[in-house]
Amino acid sequence: MNDTICALATAPGGALGIIRISGAQALEILSRIFTKDLTTAQPNTIHYGHIVENLAIQFPQVIDEVLVSVFRAPHSYTGEDSAEISCHGSSYILNKVLELLVKNGCRIANPGEYTMRAYLNGKLDLSQAEAVADLIASSNQATHQMAMSQLRGGISSKLSQLREQLLKLTSLLELELDFSDHEDLEFADRTELSNLANKIDNHITHLAHSFETGQAIKQGIPVAIVGKTNVGKSTLLNRLLKDDRAIVSDIHGTTRDTIEDTINIQGITFRFIDTAGIRQTTNEIEKIGINRTISAIRKSRIVLWVIDQEPTNEEINNIVQQAENKSVIVVCNKSDLNEYHHFTIVNFPLITISAKHNTNIGDLESAIYKAANIPTLTDTDVIVTNARHYDALIRAKEHLQRVIEGLNQQLSGDLLSEDLRLTLDTLSEITGGQITTNEVLGNIFKNFCVGK
Amino acid sequence: MNDTICALATAPGGALGIIRISGAQALEILSRIFTKDLTTAQPNTIHYGHIVENLAIQFPQVIDEVLVSVFRAPHSYTGEDSAEISCHGSSYILNKVLELLVKNGCRIANPGEYTMRAYLNGKLDLSQAEAVADLIASSNQATHQMAMSQLRGGISSKLSQLREQLLKLTSLLELELDFSDHEDLEFADRTELSNLANKIDNHITHLAHSFETGQAIKQGIPVAIVGKTNVGKSTLLNRLLKDDRAIVSDIHGTTRDTIEDTINIQGITFRFIDTAGIRQTTNEIEKIGINRTISAIRKSRIVLWVIDQEPTNEEINNIVQQAENKSVIVVCNKSDLNEYHHFTIVNFPLITISAKHNTNIGDLESAIYKAANIPTLTDTDVIVTNARHYDALIRAKEHLQRVIEGLNQQLSGDLLSEDLRLTLDTLSEITGGQITTNEVLGNIFKNFCVGK
Repeated sequence: MNDTICALATAPGGALGIIRISGAQALEILSRIFTKDLTTAQPNTIHYGHIVENLAIQFPQVIDEVLVSVFRAPHSYTGEDSAEISCHGSSYILNKVLELLVKNGCRIANPGEYTMRAYLNGKLDLSQAEAVADLIASSNQATHQMAMSQLRGGISSKLSQLREQLLKLTSLLELELDFSDHEDLEFADRTELSNLANKIDNHITHLAHSFETGQAIKQGIPVAIVGKTNVGKSTLLNRLLKDDRAIVSDIHGTTRDTIEDTINIQGITFRFIDTAGIRQTTNEIEKIGINRTISAIRKSRIVLWVIDQEPTNEEINNIVQQAENKSVIVVCNKSDLNEYHHFTIVNFPLITISAKHNTNIGDLESAIYKAANIPTLTDTDVIVTNARHYDALIRAKEHLQRVIEGLNQQLSGDLLSEDLRLTLDTLSEITGGQITTNEVLGNIFKNFCVGK
Repeated sequence: MNDTICALATAPGGALGIIRISGAQALEILSRIFTKDLTTAQPNTIHYGHIVENLAIQFPQVIDEVLVSVFRAPHSYTGEDSAEISCHGSSYILNKVLELLVKNGCRIANPGEYTMRAYLNGKLDLSQAEAVADLIASSNQATHQMAMSQLRGGISSKLSQLREQLLKLTSLLELELDFSDHEDLEFADRTELSNLANKIDNHITHLAHSFETGQAIKQGIPVAIVGKTNVGKSTLLNRLLKDDRAIVSDIHGTTRDTIEDTINIQGITFRFIDTAGIRQTTNEIEKIGINRTISAIRKSRIVLWVIDQEPTNEEINNIVQQAENKSVIVVCNKSDLNEYHHFTIVNFPLITISAKHNTNIGDLESAIYKAANIPTLTDTDVIVTNARHYDALIRAKEHLQRVIEGLNQQLSGDLLSEDLRLTLDTLSEITGGQITTNEVLGNIFKNFCVGK
């Protein structure tokens, strides 16, 4: 924490490259290789000048014409004196500037070290720090919104509410303890305490449950396309993928993400499972056996069952069995050739489409989105997306369960206080209140990119 | 030129992404999606705030927490009012911010449009504008130095000297013309004029010749490794490549350039020709015939002739013939097994090494660098690297040749003035003095990256 760090904060290969410097000596070190003295520069100002190899000599080698942004502690991202050098995006220049910074006293930053310093300096809590990495990785509206909500303190404020309720429970137990000193008094009525403990437990359970949704949104919701050969599965997949691709590449040159076999519906990513075979030739599809279908269904959350004629009862029973606990959509394809009106399947929505003629594909997409059962995300909703948070919630719940059992078993307050304290401490791991060991921090920040 | 443009200026995939906006309405448009009013912001200041989807509603959707740098005409890169938004590097966020800018009145910039505007607003001349693209593409010390020299006006000042001399020649001719009005006077002594014209011609020729060096430096100097099988060619290549790789990857995570089969000696890139086969197994090397060797030598500028015993006169004669006009270095390999002291070859340096035991590889590298015959680049040296500049120099030289011939043939000054004017005009194409057509400008800037 005492040294001054530097790193490239942008990806290589652009018109611009940004090098970040942070630490007590940031402006002093930078001034040794910059043609202006920045040690007395005002905060939040921009300075034009040259990065030079040897400032002392009369005609030093100019490495680049740059703009330097100056930030002053504590009003910077890290909370330290910092600067950002906006260079031309040449790999030679960026390497050279980093080399000069290191020669003059900087150290190359570790992954996530800027954000770790921001956390250690109290600029954001640990769940917000983790949200920074999620925000950078966000690739659609839903992941963006979850990360932004977390960054803006969504989880933190939820936890602070839980903390208040747990403290209230603690003080009620202490009150009970005070009364129980009078040996002539019975144990207090614990209904209120039990109610409060169960309410907190419900909130924690709700948060923990949101992790499944959070993971699905983060990784894309898995969709299996199944059905007999020649029913039009590959045509349907191509139709779904193609429509989406056109939208994604709307703004030229701004994203190079490969979006193989995923589509985006209303900001949620849907990921097609194991579709490599589907777009092979018909002959190869023949070889895809029942095992492959079962495996795809098992990995999915949503099953698109494509048919081109009304199914037999046996076929329906097969799907109902195989797709237990999945959201199945029956896709009645080839609507131009066939009519479907003699059957319904309980709980399975039926969508009649023509993949070939692009009929009702919008309806199918709406049905897919509905089948995902994503709660509408509002600013007050909190969805847990981080495995570390989920783990802490589950452990907090275990401690709280012991409190609840103790209350029911009429254990005395002083026997419950340890578990109550553990519940509090475990919850506060999420925002970092109880975490200060380097090992834990290292594990959290090691997956960040360098430069953030 | 009247509209306001925006583009991503950094490569996708980093911690940060920078979006640039430039044009008369830059700050007005940005203020429509930013939580602070920037229309009255001071130049060269940085502003923290949120980019939001709909500023008018009470709780607008926050797209990102950003820093905005404000620049004011004429003291900006383009010479126009401009801003740079420093966003989190998520593809979703960057697309969304660009989308909001476009919705609010910006247009996505064409490749190089910022630099083109800088040129049109007189912030830099055309050769400097071209240097910006070269600077961004520079990947070693030499290409960087050439681009930086050009950006800082190296070519421009050289051309301005030539222009002065041409104007002097013009005025001398006019003076002669004034005298020749007196019909009783002989034609003036044209020695001085001829000397001056030849001096200018020498300068132009020198500049044009530098193009070959410039191209070699820009593209890497081609080196062929030839020799009989089992003399250690592949070991030598691996030795040269390996030593270099270690240096290049010195600063972790800052460059992802693939450096297949090139090495960097004293800032110059050397590129090995057609080495794919060399590192195959010995059996495959056997198949490499004489034709392949001849072809590699033809494409090279430097030939490393690897031997492991003293060559016969016939072998020497073969190489001398095949490698005419090339710089040949005789690499006497396996110095641990063999001794070489019974032969020399005129003009061919001999370096005794052991590729296997890493002996004298440094000497070989020095010999390679020397063989490249790269003039020492100083700040006053100008090297032409741009094919457009070379073309203009060659055409200017043709016009000047006609002036010189006319002087020798005692043509009268008014007959020479047209060619003299064409010489001047052609030279000034380089810095853009005579170029204003959109087509020419479009051709120059189309190869720039978007965002610069």
